[in-house]
Amino acid sequence: MAARLKIGKLVVIGVGLVGGSFALALKRARAVQRVVGVGRTRRNLADALRLKAIDEASQDPARAVQGADLVLLATPVGQMPAIMSAIAPHLPAHAVVTDAGSTKRDVIACAQRFLGGHLPRFVPAHPVAGTEMSGAAAAFPDLFRGRSVILTPQAGTAAGAVTLVRRAWEACGARVVRLDAGAHDELLAAVSHLPHVIAFALVNMLAGRRNPARLFGLSSGGLRDTVRIAGSSPEMWADICVANRDALLAALEDYENELEQTRAAIERADAQELKRLFAQAHSAREKWLVKEQS
Amino acid sequence: MAARLKIGKLVVIGVGLVGGSFALALKRARAVQRVVGVGRTRRNLADALRLKAIDEASQDPARAVQGADLVLLATPVGQMPAIMSAIAPHLPAHAVVTDAGSTKRDVIACAQRFLGGHLPRFVPAHPVAGTEMSGAAAAFPDLFRGRSVILTPQAGTAAGAVTLVRRAWEACGARVVRLDAGAHDELLAAVSHLPHVIAFALVNMLAGRRNPARLFGLSSGGLRDTVRIAGSSPEMWADICVANRDALLAALEDYENELEQTRAAIERADAQELKRLFAQAHSAREKWLVKEQS
Repeated sequence: MAARLKIGKLVVIGVGLVGGSFALALKRARAVQRVVGVGRTRRNLADALRLKAIDEASQDPARAVQGADLVLLATPVGQMPAIMSAIAPHLPAHAVVTDAGSTKRDVIACAQRFLGGHLPRFVPAHPVAGTEMSGAAAAFPDLFRGRSVILTPQAGTAAGAVTLVRRAWEACGARVVRLDAGAHDELLAAVSHLPHVIAFALVNMLAGRRNPARLFGLSSGGLRDTVRIAGSSPEMWADICVANRDALLAALEDYENELEQTRAAIERADAQELKRLFAQAHSAREKWLVKEQS
Repeated sequence: MAARLKIGKLVVIGVGLVGGSFALALKRARAVQRVVGVGRTRRNLADALRLKAIDEASQDPARAVQGADLVLLATPVGQMPAIMSAIAPHLPAHAVVTDAGSTKRDVIACAQRFLGGHLPRFVPAHPVAGTEMSGAAAAFPDLFRGRSVILTPQAGTAAGAVTLVRRAWEACGARVVRLDAGAHDELLAAVSHLPHVIAFALVNMLAGRRNPARLFGLSSGGLRDTVRIAGSSPEMWADICVANRDALLAALEDYENELEQTRAAIERADAQELKRLFAQAHSAREKWLVKEQS
């Protein structure tokens, strides 16, 4: 059996739902000695301290990473360039850096540009978990239990660094899988980024109609579930859409074609074709999502 | 205070989730003496008998409505013409007929055509409640508690008939509102029919990609919630889409315009505009759906 995981100093940059939950989970697993949280707002850092997700708060990433064993970048993807360039000169040689970004090709490109000689100890990662809540106050140690974390190491990534990150996520209760970064971005564009775009657009369309109070007042639990993810962080999702633009546009086009097929069937009042399309979706959901859940 | 509601014989034609739950709720409220359930399949009727939603099962709507005080039509909308023409000659003069269809203009047109002299005692209604489950086995008496039921009586509808139907739904715990049938169909196209079309299309798009097992395996709770309503009855939703075609096509067009605005912002990598669009949806959801829920 592998020796027990022991991380001396963990630095979490971006102590939101994901960063805060990672720290809480590792603390509960007694896999970390000390956590320093870096954030932009004092209020969020105060929440993280109060929740004991972090032991120390800082607003200076460059100073915070001194002496770090593991650094998690859990900010919106758009902040990665500034943070990587700030921390690169101050990272201890042995420190492993990982991230929690929802897109991987862009984060890897950013690391190649800004992490310099530290690049082999950077392990790109994406925990596929979250709620529509954001901020440290929403963090909880079970967020990753039973969820997938995707690692997308490159040819030059050090094996030891990958092992440390894998073990840290396993200590959080996650199931760790490895994927090519491009495959990751395509898969996530379809299964996560597109559904968010759809939910935001649907809410905007409804809110733009006459008398939205009456409209939403007549909605049922179905609508609430469909648009729950429209409660996600606008900044984070704007960054993701830009970062994964090509894969997302391709997924959006596939979806629009599917929608167009349905629209055409509605237009010609083709109940048989609509029933066929809906039955196909019904059984795909049963097969892939209902089974999966139980 | 009004005298206690007492329905002698209730006939539920289509003992599915809605019809079965209506019967269970009225029985629990001791507002009905005897319930006859009419259905197409013996198996579903057996479920309804076992659950005590109905006291007697029948496969013949014309015979079942003899001696009825209240008749609920709770089949998919596409079956209404056949059922109305079958029952019309056999309805007692005092019997009130109502329905639970998700569209109202088409059901009213159908009643005008097939119910003859009984038309003033037909009260068009739509309980805005449901789950993704269907069939009598999914019925439960609290389905309508706190939910809206929309009545769309016409100029010629008898006031006493409207009162009976209103009181029956109130006995189920529902909040009864009145709307013009056209307004109902437009509102529901946006807030319910469109989200179903979207969920079915999204699942079909995902299922049509390479390696759907891997794709769905990487999905999170967000996707599951977004497409939960794709578990709804394909037949029922095909009928609804055809019945409410014009209003649904108009809602779909508004949605596609909204989606197009997002697509254009993604294409030009306009993070500011995306953040604005997403923030707008985020606060509309907070305002109309999160408040509403609590």
